[in-house]
Amino acid sequence: MSGQSVTFPEGFVATGVAAHIKKNGQPDVCIVASTTPCLAAGVFTTNLVQAACVRLNKSHLQKSGGKVCGLVINSGNANAVTGEQGELAAKQTAQCLAEILKCAPEEILVGSTGVIGVPLPYEKLAAGIVRAVPQLSATGGMAAAHAIMTTDSKAKVAAAQSSRGYKWGGMAKGAGMIHPNMATLISVVTTDAVVPAEFLDKAVREASRKSFNRISIDGDTSTNDMFLVLANGASGIEANHAEFVRELTEISINLAKQVVADGEGATKLVSIKVQCAASEADAERVAKTIATSALVKTALYGNDANWGRVLAAAGRSGATFDPALVSLRFDELVLLDTGTPVAFDESVALAVLKKDQLEIVLNLAAGTGEAEVWTCDFSHEYVSVNAAYRT
Amino acid sequence: MSGQSVTFPEGFVATGVAAHIKKNGQPDVCIVASTTPCLAAGVFTTNLVQAACVRLNKSHLQKSGGKVCGLVINSGNANAVTGEQGELAAKQTAQCLAEILKCAPEEILVGSTGVIGVPLPYEKLAAGIVRAVPQLSATGGMAAAHAIMTTDSKAKVAAAQSSRGYKWGGMAKGAGMIHPNMATLISVVTTDAVVPAEFLDKAVREASRKSFNRISIDGDTSTNDMFLVLANGASGIEANHAEFVRELTEISINLAKQVVADGEGATKLVSIKVQCAASEADAERVAKTIATSALVKTALYGNDANWGRVLAAAGRSGATFDPALVSLRFDELVLLDTGTPVAFDESVALAVLKKDQLEIVLNLAAGTGEAEVWTCDFSHEYVSVNAAYRT
Repeated sequence: MSGQSVTFPEGFVATGVAAHIKKNGQPDVCIVASTTPCLAAGVFTTNLVQAACVRLNKSHLQKSGGKVCGLVINSGNANAVTGEQGELAAKQTAQCLAEILKCAPEEILVGSTGVIGVPLPYEKLAAGIVRAVPQLSATGGMAAAHAIMTTDSKAKVAAAQSSRGYKWGGMAKGAGMIHPNMATLISVVTTDAVVPAEFLDKAVREASRKSFNRISIDGDTSTNDMFLVLANGASGIEANHAEFVRELTEISINLAKQVVADGEGATKLVSIKVQCAASEADAERVAKTIATSALVKTALYGNDANWGRVLAAAGRSGATFDPALVSLRFDELVLLDTGTPVAFDESVALAVLKKDQLEIVLNLAAGTGEAEVWTCDFSHEYVSVNAAYRT
Repeated sequence: MSGQSVTFPEGFVATGVAAHIKKNGQPDVCIVASTTPCLAAGVFTTNLVQAACVRLNKSHLQKSGGKVCGLVINSGNANAVTGEQGELAAKQTAQCLAEILKCAPEEILVGSTGVIGVPLPYEKLAAGIVRAVPQLSATGGMAAAHAIMTTDSKAKVAAAQSSRGYKWGGMAKGAGMIHPNMATLISVVTTDAVVPAEFLDKAVREASRKSFNRISIDGDTSTNDMFLVLANGASGIEANHAEFVRELTEISINLAKQVVADGEGATKLVSIKVQCAASEADAERVAKTIATSALVKTALYGNDANWGRVLAAAGRSGATFDPALVSLRFDELVLLDTGTPVAFDESVALAVLKKDQLEIVLNLAAGTGEAEVWTCDFSHEYVSVNAAYRT
């Protein structure tokens, strides 16, 4: 179990400690490092308001040519909209870890998540880093995954082995403000495969497009989103490019689905599959509009087969289709067949909706485009969590 | 009081009766008619999935050249996604009222709101129409406003008198699936001013753009949205065009704000004012993104001055601005000044947020564009109402 996270591949060490940035004393500083020279690539939030660490990482990846030593993430403070002081704090954080790991500051990546607009208590973070480094170990993956959690109810980790023999590990955190537009709040995937730097960057973009960019909890894109992939080549096994992208997409989808299933107040994981759209872009547009509809999500919470709301959301998405040709089902329960409502047994519908996983399949009969998007339901608990998050 | 609705202007009669389309026996059929020849114009939902009545009204207004006798609205069934049977039912509804009022079917407009995808019980509706017509009266405006309600907790009406002497009356219904994209769920405004037909249409579009199109309860655009304006010229007073548009916009904003204040589960009416945006379109984009953010709306419900969420929403809106120059206040409480967070007293913030009306003013320092959008908070009650709406 200790290896079922970012330390599953060879040559990665990690840990998590409590630096008391979080008021509740839970672990809040996570470090992941590679014991051998390592490549990194990442995708970041497209929000115009970006946390200091997002800007810092972009600049570091550029300066270092994608070479990294390790990364540090704090989960107590977003360090976003914190002015010059915040920029400085992010820079100092990288310097602090770089000095201990004996590498250049631009070989360190930084992540942060938590409340926006409150100055980062840098002294606490630095003390946490100093305490954490000696604890770095090849079995520290779970500790790292725990230390990046905020309102997450459980750690999100994944591990896989390629048929060629190299390994993958990953962790993510989510919970709220989840509607990634380039990446999720924070996810780190590691691999010991050998890949060229220029390819890694492309692979990250491709994988995130069909995984983290296709989930939504509340439609809000964070200021701190980042998805980082570290490849240290420690296995000595060269990756096949197409295979590598497929595997990276797979582990990313695995982590993304864990994020949605543990969305704030979520009681079920819902897959929205849109088929036969005029284009893939249309399919994605429809699926995302359904996935973010408050009315669809509250009906799902209430186990109500209110399919009219699904269709109304599709209709306002901007996609092109003929409502008279559309078919819709919840799992195997057909609700609409070629534009005509199908009578259904409410008790059968209730049984389908009560499960903790549900598939909504919408066929637009407009072409060959398709997309799958993951979302969760919208509950009283989501309102409770977010009505009093800051205070 | 009896005149404070669509019957306030001269020459309009109205009523509302219970036709038992609603299970709870509340009034569900509303008729508004003009006793003199009357012009009408309307804007309708832009949802691709449109109720039968939306298509019918567009065709009727075209065929009749904007001349109408009256309108009938049922609030028990949306008659949307109900196939050919639904189209026929809408047509029959207009015919039924036309026969009694002795006018052409295309001189009747039809509205419907309620559950989607369930066949309209036309026999009940027709019986209701037959019973309602003899009750039409110049004091029936409030009864009409009550009969269009669904989950609304109160009737929404307005009345005004122009300085020239002609009068205005209006009613609206809202509650959920409110994010109009041309009009609100259903609103009818009447006036006895004299206006040319071609101008009325333009005035409706202009007024709705700055009123009903600038409110949001849950981000979901309905299949049945319509905003109709009836002008019968009964006052004999000719309107000045600019004045007419200003007055129509005013009464529309009045009704639109009532719709938001009575949003499902809403505890407060929130005005989002975006100033100094690069363009009016940018200002509207930012204001609407804030107005539909689940995180902003749950924080408002929790009386939490979580301004970081307001800024994060602005940042993902697609508008162009420099976060370092932005200022933000809640009423008079300044939270962000030229990109720098301002320390504030939590008890003062709580006092501001506890009020049932709140103004959020965001200055983007990017130009001269501005827009005001109205929204409400997002409560446990919204989830309760919508988790079990259909069943």
